[in-house]
Amino acid sequence: MQQKMSENGAIPRQGKVLTVDTMNANVKKVDYAVRGPIVQRAVQIEKELKEGVKKPFDEVIKANIGDAHAMGQRPITFFRQVMALCTYPQLLDDNKFPEDAKNRARRILQSCGGNSIGAYTTSQGIDCVRQDVAKYIERRDGGIPSDPDNIYLTTGASDGIVTILKLLTAGEGLTRTGVMISIPQYPLYSASIAELGAVQINYYLNEEKCWSLDISELQRSLQAARKHCNPRVLCIINPGNPTGQVQSRQCIEDVIQFAAKENLFLMADEVYQDNVYAKGCEFHSFKKVLFEMGPEYSKKVELASFHSTSKCYMGECGFRGGYMEVINMDADVKAQLTKLVSVRLCPPAPGQALMDLVVNPPQPGEPSHQTFMQERTAVLSALAEKAKLTEQILNTVPGISCNPVQGAMYSFPRITLPERAISEAKAKGQAPDMFYCMKLLEETGICLVPGSGFGQREGTYHFRMTILPPTDKLKLMLNKLKDFHQRFTQQYS
Amino acid sequence: MQQKMSENGAIPRQGKVLTVDTMNANVKKVDYAVRGPIVQRAVQIEKELKEGVKKPFDEVIKANIGDAHAMGQRPITFFRQVMALCTYPQLLDDNKFPEDAKNRARRILQSCGGNSIGAYTTSQGIDCVRQDVAKYIERRDGGIPSDPDNIYLTTGASDGIVTILKLLTAGEGLTRTGVMISIPQYPLYSASIAELGAVQINYYLNEEKCWSLDISELQRSLQAARKHCNPRVLCIINPGNPTGQVQSRQCIEDVIQFAAKENLFLMADEVYQDNVYAKGCEFHSFKKVLFEMGPEYSKKVELASFHSTSKCYMGECGFRGGYMEVINMDADVKAQLTKLVSVRLCPPAPGQALMDLVVNPPQPGEPSHQTFMQERTAVLSALAEKAKLTEQILNTVPGISCNPVQGAMYSFPRITLPERAISEAKAKGQAPDMFYCMKLLEETGICLVPGSGFGQREGTYHFRMTILPPTDKLKLMLNKLKDFHQRFTQQYS
Repeated sequence: MQQKMSENGAIPRQGKVLTVDTMNANVKKVDYAVRGPIVQRAVQIEKELKEGVKKPFDEVIKANIGDAHAMGQRPITFFRQVMALCTYPQLLDDNKFPEDAKNRARRILQSCGGNSIGAYTTSQGIDCVRQDVAKYIERRDGGIPSDPDNIYLTTGASDGIVTILKLLTAGEGLTRTGVMISIPQYPLYSASIAELGAVQINYYLNEEKCWSLDISELQRSLQAARKHCNPRVLCIINPGNPTGQVQSRQCIEDVIQFAAKENLFLMADEVYQDNVYAKGCEFHSFKKVLFEMGPEYSKKVELASFHSTSKCYMGECGFRGGYMEVINMDADVKAQLTKLVSVRLCPPAPGQALMDLVVNPPQPGEPSHQTFMQERTAVLSALAEKAKLTEQILNTVPGISCNPVQGAMYSFPRITLPERAISEAKAKGQAPDMFYCMKLLEETGICLVPGSGFGQREGTYHFRMTILPPTDKLKLMLNKLKDFHQRFTQQYS
Repeated sequence: MQQKMSENGAIPRQGKVLTVDTMNANVKKVDYAVRGPIVQRAVQIEKELKEGVKKPFDEVIKANIGDAHAMGQRPITFFRQVMALCTYPQLLDDNKFPEDAKNRARRILQSCGGNSIGAYTTSQGIDCVRQDVAKYIERRDGGIPSDPDNIYLTTGASDGIVTILKLLTAGEGLTRTGVMISIPQYPLYSASIAELGAVQINYYLNEEKCWSLDISELQRSLQAARKHCNPRVLCIINPGNPTGQVQSRQCIEDVIQFAAKENLFLMADEVYQDNVYAKGCEFHSFKKVLFEMGPEYSKKVELASFHSTSKCYMGECGFRGGYMEVINMDADVKAQLTKLVSVRLCPPAPGQALMDLVVNPPQPGEPSHQTFMQERTAVLSALAEKAKLTEQILNTVPGISCNPVQGAMYSFPRITLPERAISEAKAKGQAPDMFYCMKLLEETGICLVPGSGFGQREGTYHFRMTILPPTDKLKLMLNKLKDFHQRFTQQYS
């Protein structure tokens, strides 16, 4: 029942002021697969199950999103104790809470206006939290200095990423800012680029080499893009989402060299920095490698790196905590950034407090240290086990081929689809892997995201699956998936 | 040390990728006075005081921002109890917490993935919270139905306002979306309009009639704007920020009629809905008046209204909780809105939980009801007293004239500045009221925001002052302000 009206936003005399024809055209181009049609259908099916509709399964297993607590992971006790103390300071008199938790809470509250996390914080984030973040980065990076003035607390990492992209978006037509993103990518990037009206530049990860990044591919992609836009930004996700690879130190050095040579602003999405499982793999921050390359690089290359409370061993997505560190940002631009973030007043104070605990966890000798380490290790070793398990089981299925899940929380296996399935999907106007995932959901209750939501090489098909379900459920799910894939292949062969 | 380079975003061969010359031009136009240079200087002065620098005062009094807890207001006990229970559910076994608080916490947690507020929520917001918001609106508006599907939880009201403005921004040049805002305005509006590259359309409130809104002024402003843009949105803040007026029911009806006739999308910023102090004044929601005007209006006029956890009697700014209700929004646009908010995954879960408590507070008969009512009433009556006090004291000062603070948390008095002060300010390149406020800060430690940050009629000068300091401190501040104004007037006469 849409009315026809001009694309240029002219007001109709009658009818709605705001229609899809007269709304922001960039917003229309936004796509966000992780919460797209598959997930909407999954929510519907859950409702149907509740209402007693008969299905060939009892529950929907949501392996579509990196949402650890929703998959049964328990919060870290110490974090929640401190957060409860910050929220309801009367508990500071309660001897059920350990002293180190109370000390952390007191310190955070002292930095808050009126000693309340209900006060606005400074727009850049609570001073003591930014100091703790800087100290954490210094420890992590073997002593390379970090300046609290370069730290901005954010509403999850997404907020920081969008903010930096926003600063960088300028020009028109051939001079419009181009943003290089990996394919497959995390769709926050394509969505934000669309919303800002920047130009998306794809560079493909090498699936044959465990989703590694080839500089020659960066070069190809950049050269092609220079013909139609102004490439200014190179985005990297390490460890990789949705692809689960961990970049080698050498590769990071090569990327930095490339960015320096080609005058690109580097954005390093490092929210999975604690999620490294594979033997021989290690997390290297872009900041650290940049500084180890010497002043020629460390004083020149502009870098923003992002972290969050949502992933790693804590999985506290709901709090929307995060930070970014900006390196070599022009001082006047930094003043603009500070002004820009002030318009939203401040990131949520509870998320800031939680970020503080992540960067300043219990230390040896403190009463909560042992429990904290046990809980942390338990989560990370379970994830390592599940990463292995996922790769192993998927690789037993003819027609599915899965790279090792070296890090992060996802596998992104390639699936071979029969020609008949592909043409049936196309006849329906669906991406073939969307068709596959939708059928999987309807028949088994397993909710995955089709590879087309992340981007993939033409003619290849994938899905993204989180490794977050509890081990037993994950095994069950992988076996159901195996059966489904065989059934599907037979049906369409 | 900026380098010169082209405005169109071309990359310099050497130097920074991102400079003020090559950054997003819209971001540069953004201005946000509430956290502008005065506040930055205030923070600096606080540091100097700490370091022992001698000043003619002992502390900075920040009356620049509606930050109740920072001004010493205590959180509502029940709210913080439930939040602590949600954060650390082990406390559900603790008999120090009342049963009604535990029930609320259990209900919220049951609606969270994995029963944890650390899980992502649905992007539109937790189901049960949206249901409670809808019920609250129905009660508030005398039974006019509210659909939870029309409720979107937000990261503070600011987030919702920016999101709706974003949807509405389209067109180019003469067809670019124009947004009508009151002058004086809350600078979130001008900042967001600048960032989105929409066109700001000013309509002036009538200072002589207690900052009321004249339809003839709306008409004048709209007609003038139609010559250079496409006016599509009318923003109203009621109760008013920074001006403290409360709109009459008749005026709201007139505004709705105007919006209907002129095909404007209405945005009603109603975050101060509990902050009404003056005799004879009452809060009427735009939604309620719209529906009382009959189907000709209630089925036609597009409206988004905004609320938040940050103001009223709770003042929980740090949690960044809020909601918006959209009325008569085109179904396809609503689908686009839902998609757009999904890119940021979800608003902070603690803010959502807190919003739930605001719309579903303790009921008569529940154990926490009495304390809750006492705390709520204490805050609101203190504010009413301070509103009166502010008006009275300011109006005793020759050269200051202050309208009644009927509602919200601010007074916006007009100040008469001597010609010599005006020319000295202009010589310095400063707005005269900025010059005044800066001097006030340096001499007395009082931090206000100059009227120029909110907009005012040419040749008039004002400042915005919150009424939030505790009564004693407020009196002291007002008397210091009085002395300063007299001194300043003498000095420059």
